[in-house]
Amino acid sequence: MVVGVIGAAGYAGAELVRLLSGHPHVGSLSLGTVSLEGERIENVYPNFLGKISSPLVKPEEVVAASDLVFAALPHGVGETYARTCLEKGVSFIDLSADFRFDDDEETFKAWYGKGYVIPELRKRSVYGLPELNRQKILDLKKDGPVIIGNPGCYPTGASLGVFPALAEGIAAPGTIIVDAASGVTGGGREPQRSFHFPECTDSVSAYKVGAHRHTPEISRNLAEMASRSGRKAPSLIFTPHLAPMNRGILSTIYISLLKEWQAGGEPASAPRPPSKDIEAKVAGIRQIYAAFYKDEPFVRVLPQGVTASTGRVRQSNFCDISVNMDQGGTTLIVVTAIDNMVKGAAGQAVQSMNILMGFGESEGLTAIPALF
Amino acid sequence: MVVGVIGAAGYAGAELVRLLSGHPHVGSLSLGTVSLEGERIENVYPNFLGKISSPLVKPEEVVAASDLVFAALPHGVGETYARTCLEKGVSFIDLSADFRFDDDEETFKAWYGKGYVIPELRKRSVYGLPELNRQKILDLKKDGPVIIGNPGCYPTGASLGVFPALAEGIAAPGTIIVDAASGVTGGGREPQRSFHFPECTDSVSAYKVGAHRHTPEISRNLAEMASRSGRKAPSLIFTPHLAPMNRGILSTIYISLLKEWQAGGEPASAPRPPSKDIEAKVAGIRQIYAAFYKDEPFVRVLPQGVTASTGRVRQSNFCDISVNMDQGGTTLIVVTAIDNMVKGAAGQAVQSMNILMGFGESEGLTAIPALF
Amino acid sequence: MVVGVIGAAGYAGAELVRLLSGHPHVGSLSLGTVSLEGERIENVYPNFLGKISSPLVKPEEVVAASDLVFAALPHGVGETYARTCLEKGVSFIDLSADFRFDDDEETFKAWYGKGYVIPELRKRSVYGLPELNRQKILDLKKDGPVIIGNPGCYPTGASLGVFPALAEGIAAPGTIIVDAASGVTGGGREPQRSFHFPECTDSVSAYKVGAHRHTPEISRNLAEMASRSGRKAPSLIFTPHLAPMNRGILSTIYISLLKEWQAGGEPASAPRPPSKDIEAKVAGIRQIYAAFYKDEPFVRVLPQGVTASTGRVRQSNFCDISVNMDQGGTTLIVVTAIDNMVKGAAGQAVQSMNILMGFGESEGLTAIPALF
Amino acid sequence: MVVGVIGAAGYAGAELVRLLSGHPHVGSLSLGTVSLEGERIENVYPNFLGKISSPLVKPEEVVAASDLVFAALPHGVGETYARTCLEKGVSFIDLSADFRFDDDEETFKAWYGKGYVIPELRKRSVYGLPELNRQKILDLKKDGPVIIGNPGCYPTGASLGVFPALAEGIAAPGTIIVDAASGVTGGGREPQRSFHFPECTDSVSAYKVGAHRHTPEISRNLAEMASRSGRKAPSLIFTPHLAPMNRGILSTIYISLLKEWQAGGEPASAPRPPSKDIEAKVAGIRQIYAAFYKDEPFVRVLPQGVTASTGRVRQSNFCDISVNMDQGGTTLIVVTAIDNMVKGAAGQAVQSMNILMGFGESEGLTAIPALF
Repeated sequence: MVVGVIGAAGYAGAELVRLLSGHPHVGSLSLGTVSLEGERIENVYPNFLGKISSPLVKPEEVVAASDLVFAALPHGVGETYARTCLEKGVSFIDLSADFRFDDDEETFKAWYGKGYVIPELRKRSVYGLPELNRQKILDLKKDGPVIIGNPGCYPTGASLGVFPALAEGIAAPGTIIVDAASGVTGGGREPQRSFHFPECTDSVSAYKVGAHRHTPEISRNLAEMASRSGRKAPSLIFTPHLAPMNRGILSTIYISLLKEWQAGGEPASAPRPPSKDIEAKVAGIRQIYAAFYKDEPFVRVLPQGVTASTGRVRQSNFCDISVNMDQGGTTLIVVTAIDNMVKGAAGQAVQSMNILMGFGESEGLTAIPALF
Repeated sequence: MVVGVIGAAGYAGAELVRLLSGHPHVGSLSLGTVSLEGERIENVYPNFLGKISSPLVKPEEVVAASDLVFAALPHGVGETYARTCLEKGVSFIDLSADFRFDDDEETFKAWYGKGYVIPELRKRSVYGLPELNRQKILDLKKDGPVIIGNPGCYPTGASLGVFPALAEGIAAPGTIIVDAASGVTGGGREPQRSFHFPECTDSVSAYKVGAHRHTPEISRNLAEMASRSGRKAPSLIFTPHLAPMNRGILSTIYISLLKEWQAGGEPASAPRPPSKDIEAKVAGIRQIYAAFYKDEPFVRVLPQGVTASTGRVRQSNFCDISVNMDQGGTTLIVVTAIDNMVKGAAGQAVQSMNILMGFGESEGLTAIPALF
Repeated sequence: MVVGVIGAAGYAGAELVRLLSGHPHVGSLSLGTVSLEGERIENVYPNFLGKISSPLVKPEEVVAASDLVFAALPHGVGETYARTCLEKGVSFIDLSADFRFDDDEETFKAWYGKGYVIPELRKRSVYGLPELNRQKILDLKKDGPVIIGNPGCYPTGASLGVFPALAEGIAAPGTIIVDAASGVTGGGREPQRSFHFPECTDSVSAYKVGAHRHTPEISRNLAEMASRSGRKAPSLIFTPHLAPMNRGILSTIYISLLKEWQAGGEPASAPRPPSKDIEAKVAGIRQIYAAFYKDEPFVRVLPQGVTASTGRVRQSNFCDISVNMDQGGTTLIVVTAIDNMVKGAAGQAVQSMNILMGFGESEGLTAIPALF
Repeated sequence: MVVGVIGAAGYAGAELVRLLSGHPHVGSLSLGTVSLEGERIENVYPNFLGKISSPLVKPEEVVAASDLVFAALPHGVGETYARTCLEKGVSFIDLSADFRFDDDEETFKAWYGKGYVIPELRKRSVYGLPELNRQKILDLKKDGPVIIGNPGCYPTGASLGVFPALAEGIAAPGTIIVDAASGVTGGGREPQRSFHFPECTDSVSAYKVGAHRHTPEISRNLAEMASRSGRKAPSLIFTPHLAPMNRGILSTIYISLLKEWQAGGEPASAPRPPSKDIEAKVAGIRQIYAAFYKDEPFVRVLPQGVTASTGRVRQSNFCDISVNMDQGGTTLIVVTAIDNMVKGAAGQAVQSMNILMGFGESEGLTAIPALF
């Protein structure tokens, strides 16, 4: 199989190239670019020397040569390539936001500042969070080639942390807070002041408070999961932070508990250390989370006492989840960790390819998290 | 004036030494240790070579020699030195948790695992968060030497971010969430696996979720501020994180708004970009915060559009505060940044000394935040 | 094949476990410890959860169960296990310094402070730097099980950078200087003040100047290579540095050039930008380096204009080499980069196993360097 | 006194602003820019909020308003401002390379690619390394306003490490090697790919090997010092590296010893641990270094056993120097550490101002190195 990657010189694209190079079902790669035509991938990333060698060609050439196409392009740029792919009978996996909102063009427009280029493509597109939409991907592909809108990085870690609480009736109606920190690769390859080493090293900051584009995507995912189990969509508050690390997203999520899941009655204004009651309730919820994800190859519900840390999923496609409760016994505190470039981008896209092509879902994604 | 520092070889103690060395009213220093007797401070910290030169002596010698004593010791170790100080008419500024809970020994015991050594010392002690208790310090010192319980690092950044919302009737009754990230110096000088470079660099993690000892201290501060304006104490959820940086604490704080401060009505399940209404409300709240702190020398309410970042308070005694709102218009999101070793420890202790001794409150604390 | 790892809980041991888990010829692992008996590897390293699950048993049990044994133990601890292995007909790959000096016990004693425990084991041991001793390994194994002394991290990067200059008559007789910087994982898993995050982050320092134990190992390697081509052994100066990064060693190596390889005559006291002559000479030497390593699977002689960087070999078994000359045209400046935990430790040990067992030399070591 | 800073928005300029704000003899600041006219310094650097507030005006306005002018501009931009200053009787301290080469325009042109704009300004300029040219500054100012060419960052740390060996007859004739690592602030404020966080964090690399512009400046300094004591100028090899830290330059310097300073005879091909003889010789040389710098307020020759580290001079104007020898006893290994933004740029410029204006040389530069 020839697999194409358009936008191969960006961080997500290059990570795709790295992962696909080790995939047992990928025969060869066709790499495309919109800005570095004529360059070679191993010159852009000398890490690849001796392992991957390929020119960067026009996107059109990639589409023409490939049996499956990934695109890691800025929002709004890839739709015509997607159309061409569908026309020639080839599926298209898109890492931009263009296909994350299905036919809800209004939300897309409100947050991304422009409308869809070819709205009708959404008839053949699906939001590719496997833990939410694996079946949808399988259903859609029965009728021919599909477009997969690969999820954003923050939405992946946030949604996976909340899903079981919504699906299993643990969350009380109301507001869910997602407080997340991302590594700097999330800002992409182009130098910018915010990601200039002296500006961001040795410092943590919040940014786009109450205004980040991933908010509606997370919100939609939560609404979808709530709806499937007949519950009301929660409200969402999402605050992203920049942390001085290369990769990874840690999400700390606050979910009000339904009465039956609370421990120790009313929230106490003078809090106290965790009670036996809280420990028991947390153990129960942890069990439910573990059961919910028991068939998922890339979700690890951590043992009690181990808290999610981005360092523990480094270079892997895992989403780690740890479950705790506040001292008052009224709020579930879920912490999730992903590698933003793998499960949060390129790895998840490969996972969708595997589902789409009928490969083993973990093929090409078997890396054990790097220890350091 | 001879100023003593017991525990001078620990991180907070050494930072105190550094700050006091530049203080215009400090004549000389007497440095004490419980574990490194016979060493010299400039050998423990070669940074000090040519600037500070002093033996590390027994705590008793420090007490005997000093007109004012700081202690940066583990919890439960310093009470006898405090008593001796009071007996000889000298004030004692304590950086441990021993004097943070006044006569509430029960809470202290519940969280720190042991009772007070000399409970009656609390008759002469005051919790030294100047923005909360400046007047209390001034009142207490009228009757002779005092003990100041210097606040914890997290409680400083958290409390200052919430106070105006409680005092000025912006916060709705209910739960306040503080999600905070600390630099690694917060773990102290003794090597531990969690703070071993390869274990914590390039990674963010949550720790002691629902179980950190600073929770009751923050909670008590919020209750105190609420009580002063005749309001009910809020509940508190506090989650600490470890970030791969040396200094600093960033606290992101979620406060439900009273109806009159909300914008745009009901929380929307499909969120939207910030509205004009939200911008106006945020501007109003920012004004209230700025007015609340207008006479505080070390609190900077940041201009609209500038978000708090630990890199901007580095090496200074400032607490930066930025004010925002969620897209739903129902929750205030306050972000605060402090240097955990300065405003979160040694600098705040010096600030209390200045108040206590009648010096200008900023003396010895005039450092402009380092740019990098 | 059952492969044993003694000392599996240390950094090098755990990295071995990670690499061996993905090795196509390794059937199962037996993991041993001298300090954490009764623990499980996935509890010590939660990164392994869901991928590797194994108890940590006594070293004796590992030896009894395995068809090949790796040991990543402190110096002087593993010799008896090595003997038992040989006795039962099993090879032993040792990551300590115990078998790096062959029968030169005097040098070992001078630098490591103790003699050999079982000196006669050196009859069956070989220093396992494949680029130097591949043939020796193959020869020795003809007579039965062998012990491989896996090279130190600094000696690997240093030796590979110098070998072609010695073997091909580029280096003038005299002193070679190796100035190298290591990531902090080189200090191992046990917390120590030097590797405590606040002590080593955001700082570079030299250490053990003129006194590092890897000096005689590098020196011996250079002497060996010089001797093979009938040249005099060079003198060596080696200075290690600690850099605030997790993995990697960068070695900058200064080699005086034989007259015929010099450019532009006498060294100029007023230096000038690189001349055409220098560029041509450098291109020629680069060609010689490339030819020298043309059959080596893990040495990359970088294209002109690309300088070695630890970030480009991250997580891989590569040693990158770049070649330059000083402005005076008299000194070759070679820069090499390795991942200290892979080519500098666990990866190289696996490479030796591959040679020893007749596997493809790159099996289990195919990782493309991580981009970030 | 009104002090002007042109280029105040760059890193070196802003660090100057920070230092000058705390200088006891600086009455007010006039801040200029060539690219951000109309902005305010506290908006560019919110760190300054509440401490420094000033518009950024045209350079001409700064010159008109000031009694002394600093310029931190790109090379070749500031000469006309320098001329205007001289004409109005005001001294000019320049942080670019424009005035570092005195009347040696040829060298400047060879390395910086362009000639002097106003060559005759060099009649009134002096290279401002106080430890080399303090007297020259004092002599020149007798005849009116002067221009000071502030040294480059690498040349400062390199030259101070070599001077005593040259002046006191310790160095043998021949080549001196300076292997140095810089923090990323050395690259300035403008975002570039090399200094983009994901490209440079967690990695060390060499750059501009054999081709860095600071080479001729170091070389000239060494020649000058050699000449003063009637010795031949040494050759120089200089290799810069980029290390993942914010501030600081560590220079490791290799100097061949004159026979009388060597220890233990011929260089040994099988090196051995440091001998008593080496220790004694090193102690002697250390004494000579200490004596050489005994009146210098900003050079610390470290005690035996303490090795220079950038973390120990952080935020200060110190240059730390440690002295060692290789195992062979033939080469002196000097390690120096400076903060590249203070002693390597802004601090040294203030030091020159102090000399020029007759202030105490340490005024405004009394900061104790930050501990973390």
